[in-house]
Amino acid sequence: MNPELREKCSNTIRFLAADAVQKANIGHPGAPMGLADAAFVLWNKFLRYNPLDPNWANRDRFVLSAGHASMLLYSMLHLSGYELSLEELKQFRQWGSLTPGHPEYGMTPGVECTTGPLGAGFGNAVGMALGLKMAGARFNTSQHAVINASVFVICSDGDIQEGVCAESASLAGHLGLGNLIAIYDQNEITIGGSIKLSMSEDVGRRFEAYGWDVQHCDGHNHDELEACLQKAKANTLRPSIIVAKTLIGKGAPNKEGTAASHGAPLGDDEIRQGKERAGWPLEPTFLIPEEVRDVFKKRTEENKAVYQKWQEEFQRWQSAHPSLAELWSTHTEHKTPQDLLEKLVNAVRGKEGATRKLSHIVIQEAARLIPGFTGGSADLEPSNLTLIEGEKDIIRSSEESGDLPDPSFSGRNIRFGIREHAMGSITNGLYLSGSWLPFCATFSVFSDYMRGSLRLAAISNIPSIFVYSHDSFWVGEDGPTHQPVEQIWALRLIHNLNVWRPADDIETAAAWAYALKRPDGNCPSALFTTRQGVSNLKRAADFDASLVWKGGYVLTDSGGGDPQVTLISTGSEGSAVQTVRDNLEADGIAARHVSLPCLERFTAQPLEYQASVLPESSKIIVVEAGTSAPWYRYADHVVGRDSFGNSAPGKLLAEKYGFTAAPLTENIKNWLKGKI
Amino acid sequence: MNPELREKCSNTIRFLAADAVQKANIGHPGAPMGLADAAFVLWNKFLRYNPLDPNWANRDRFVLSAGHASMLLYSMLHLSGYELSLEELKQFRQWGSLTPGHPEYGMTPGVECTTGPLGAGFGNAVGMALGLKMAGARFNTSQHAVINASVFVICSDGDIQEGVCAESASLAGHLGLGNLIAIYDQNEITIGGSIKLSMSEDVGRRFEAYGWDVQHCDGHNHDELEACLQKAKANTLRPSIIVAKTLIGKGAPNKEGTAASHGAPLGDDEIRQGKERAGWPLEPTFLIPEEVRDVFKKRTEENKAVYQKWQEEFQRWQSAHPSLAELWSTHTEHKTPQDLLEKLVNAVRGKEGATRKLSHIVIQEAARLIPGFTGGSADLEPSNLTLIEGEKDIIRSSEESGDLPDPSFSGRNIRFGIREHAMGSITNGLYLSGSWLPFCATFSVFSDYMRGSLRLAAISNIPSIFVYSHDSFWVGEDGPTHQPVEQIWALRLIHNLNVWRPADDIETAAAWAYALKRPDGNCPSALFTTRQGVSNLKRAADFDASLVWKGGYVLTDSGGGDPQVTLISTGSEGSAVQTVRDNLEADGIAARHVSLPCLERFTAQPLEYQASVLPESSKIIVVEAGTSAPWYRYADHVVGRDSFGNSAPGKLLAEKYGFTAAPLTENIKNWLKGKI
Repeated sequence: MNPELREKCSNTIRFLAADAVQKANIGHPGAPMGLADAAFVLWNKFLRYNPLDPNWANRDRFVLSAGHASMLLYSMLHLSGYELSLEELKQFRQWGSLTPGHPEYGMTPGVECTTGPLGAGFGNAVGMALGLKMAGARFNTSQHAVINASVFVICSDGDIQEGVCAESASLAGHLGLGNLIAIYDQNEITIGGSIKLSMSEDVGRRFEAYGWDVQHCDGHNHDELEACLQKAKANTLRPSIIVAKTLIGKGAPNKEGTAASHGAPLGDDEIRQGKERAGWPLEPTFLIPEEVRDVFKKRTEENKAVYQKWQEEFQRWQSAHPSLAELWSTHTEHKTPQDLLEKLVNAVRGKEGATRKLSHIVIQEAARLIPGFTGGSADLEPSNLTLIEGEKDIIRSSEESGDLPDPSFSGRNIRFGIREHAMGSITNGLYLSGSWLPFCATFSVFSDYMRGSLRLAAISNIPSIFVYSHDSFWVGEDGPTHQPVEQIWALRLIHNLNVWRPADDIETAAAWAYALKRPDGNCPSALFTTRQGVSNLKRAADFDASLVWKGGYVLTDSGGGDPQVTLISTGSEGSAVQTVRDNLEADGIAARHVSLPCLERFTAQPLEYQASVLPESSKIIVVEAGTSAPWYRYADHVVGRDSFGNSAPGKLLAEKYGFTAAPLTENIKNWLKGKI
Repeated sequence: MNPELREKCSNTIRFLAADAVQKANIGHPGAPMGLADAAFVLWNKFLRYNPLDPNWANRDRFVLSAGHASMLLYSMLHLSGYELSLEELKQFRQWGSLTPGHPEYGMTPGVECTTGPLGAGFGNAVGMALGLKMAGARFNTSQHAVINASVFVICSDGDIQEGVCAESASLAGHLGLGNLIAIYDQNEITIGGSIKLSMSEDVGRRFEAYGWDVQHCDGHNHDELEACLQKAKANTLRPSIIVAKTLIGKGAPNKEGTAASHGAPLGDDEIRQGKERAGWPLEPTFLIPEEVRDVFKKRTEENKAVYQKWQEEFQRWQSAHPSLAELWSTHTEHKTPQDLLEKLVNAVRGKEGATRKLSHIVIQEAARLIPGFTGGSADLEPSNLTLIEGEKDIIRSSEESGDLPDPSFSGRNIRFGIREHAMGSITNGLYLSGSWLPFCATFSVFSDYMRGSLRLAAISNIPSIFVYSHDSFWVGEDGPTHQPVEQIWALRLIHNLNVWRPADDIETAAAWAYALKRPDGNCPSALFTTRQGVSNLKRAADFDASLVWKGGYVLTDSGGGDPQVTLISTGSEGSAVQTVRDNLEADGIAARHVSLPCLERFTAQPLEYQASVLPESSKIIVVEAGTSAPWYRYADHVVGRDSFGNSAPGKLLAEKYGFTAAPLTENIKNWLKGKI
């Protein structure tokens, strides 16, 4: 392509961003303008996509970790023929548009993940690259490569500074994710000014230390960019990062290279000067010259041919490997058995012990039933009890496998290392890669380290399963830093996240089944389990496990007539509260026991059901070994634990804190004295 | 010292750990046993301490970031003469002992910070080193060096994997904290097994990229360790890391070098074999040979001389610089003016705008009044509005300053970079360094990234001030990833953290004053401010600002008689609710308006006061632009915002979500129809 035309393409991207931000009167013009060249080269020469089939399984993934550069992505999607009209670009950041301030997964066709919180997109990209490698190991054959896509991620100085990015990069280097290519937009400008205010490290050298292939280039030189991308694609045994020196806001004569172009409209005058300098017509705004449209059309046509060829290959592969093809649809449609609940319950029914142990049993059965079920722990496999037995660890390739299935990625156990935040982001990325139903695990208290990932899963409707063992002061001797208090409620506060705290064998199975089956859509789940042993709840022999899916249900009703009190327990408190109920009944107080493993599911039930479980005429009392205050939305009295713990045996703490049956009964009776 | 004796010293540390974990029947023997040599060399040759004055301002700091190795620290403290008896070591991890599972600041003399959550201690150490550099820049003179202490931090493979450690290390390298020395206990074993399961990076090279001085040594060779520490001390322009290859559990014949020694007692038999192999008496357990005691006594005596010399130097310095000496006590006693509240209020009274702007004004006055007040933002200075005007940025030294005051560290604005989690840990460390009242800032939604630091501040009673601007959907166009919903309540759930959401000029000043003055002890604070402009609340001319410190108070009472409804607002909703109250009164509904900027302070008031503000006879209604559920502990009806936001102008969102006066009035009147 002649240099003039490609400059025109870049300028189109530049001025679309400048115009859109100006029209919205808010936004980030600098990054899209600085990245216009890199994005153009990437999309025009490398990225394999089909705008008419945005979910094509073997498309290359493009992740804009620097989500504030959203106008770059919207422009590329529009120009490439995705269902995103110019009108939408003009509605940038407005109510109801498909062009929100930061890219949102599920809203705009072609947006691969929700980004904006820095570093998280980078983690997602690592997860996608891993997920594609794992899928390739499953589905490619010596004759056919059906999954060999690459993941391209654009990251900013801000992403690079974030810990979640560092953690993710370290794991990507360890696993040798050769299908991952990062373009680091090193414009050295952040909101505060020069990056030199806060950073002087050698980022390239750092990534070399992680085991990445590192290249440097002028981020505005199309030939250099192309050569780097070519070399990065060729290196299939290591992830690659291209450190592209760019000028933020390139094209804005007075503001380029300065923080003034980062997060505010350039101003009409600056845009005018920029367009004049570039020989760009001042009107109309949002101009896309016909010859630029043609360049993108041509590229989309080329990609259509690639897509067509893949479809043919895929059909040949399907015919040659019918059972693999069936497995493919199981994976990519995230299928689970119709009777998953029953099967998981049957696998664990009657087993007894810590719910983390029960969870371990359920995980084995889930892995047997759902081939796309995969996951791991942040180095707490022996504590969270999350290893899938009989399956291999994911390890790095020892040699070039080309398009052949790579046995290094045929395992299902992922060793995330002590990198909780990255683990969350990577888990979300694994799901987004298309073939997996992933989980990850750590201690409950360290959910704090990865909260950003849970929120993004919830915003994006990504059904990641976050397993949190050691879920209360029962952690014991490790002391207050390791004893969760507020974590369960802190996660319940996140909208669109199901928080499960199962009490026993049946509830553990049901919680897992719900999280995997997602009957309410793609809500993510947090699943709390105990360190300590618990007794299974006494249940009717014909107990219907599907009741658990209602989130809360009557476990034992009062012996005679309407209950005066209804005792709610969650998780490990169930067994003690069962005794408390018996004690109250023995004292002539009609008492019902409700087990409530998932408040979100319970409050989603029809009001009649909720009222039938928690009758208005009854005093409602909650027992949960954690923060009490928010429970008062539903209860008249709460026995909780509101301050930090102590280092001592868990059993002793339960006595000291009044969480055994005798003091619980006493507490409740004393409270009732004033209330009944 | 002869090799036999020093081996004996190391073995004492080793077997104390093995015995204590065995007696507790739970704990981590491996790391203390592997680290016994490094710790011995460090304490015996380098660390300057005085067990009789654990808070000596110029002591070297020892941070055990690998907090699970707590028995190492307890043994060193005991052997060095701190108030920690052998009996306490025998009560390791037991109720009421001074030797909890992980070290707790404020509990055990000599413990510099609470550690256990991995990576956080490393961040604290960076903060301490920075705080000492800053103190040196203030107090050292050409004649006298009163602050030139070093910070030594021991970190594990787990710390090294954590993002918070990576972020902190990058900033430490950038700032050239030559007084920071890390010993990296590279035993390559974690809970899951070999570190090679999850990491293959070159850590030394990574730290070189950050700008650290990197050395490698055999972590059991005392001479090598000493040489490395010597060289690290000599390098005063860069932080140093010593990559010490160690054998986890060294001394346990069958378990050393394996994960089996990491987190479980070795077992009586293994300990017996280990002691036999080492020629160590099997009985008594917890043996400390007399000659080992003597070694430590000698070292403590040496240090006593160092301490004495410093005291003399300090007295000479005091005499020579009486005004500096006064400043010293202001800094180190964290003094604030008696009338701080009044002064801050006067500085901002009558100013109007976004509370982040009001906060900016208050910050300037606080900085003028409190010389130890310092802080910064995670690259959002222009958004959080937290720069201290007229003060310099903290920058790295350009050349060796020796013990002279280093002007590079004479500023008060810290540029944390886009590293929220590290920012929190470093801020905690700044306070712990002894001379500072620090704050840090980012967007409210990114409090999620640094939650671990807030929890540790709360556990440890560190009065860090966490400033969170852009505190609701009013963020607007940046969309759901940047709009906090659950963050305010998520922080309210953390025990011992005061969460402030001021409404206007007076409340912003009062919130800052409370956070800085800490009249309830050293509780940390989170301080939420708005992006958007707010109107000051209409108040009586003689309004007493100290009422704000009660957390909640009657702003406007009902016009006639007892209120039928009491409207509670927090922060930016105050002004709209003031109109709502007027509307209700105009409709004949007796309505009171309570402003409630800090729930924690309000619920700490006597019940009589609380009842006088929120009368039982009145319906209580809360209006807050965030999660509603937990408010039902205190309210009959809540107008909140429980789902994720949209990208659109904030004002439009307020209308769509019903947060302007008209729909709020409508909502409340409709609700009241069913209730009054």
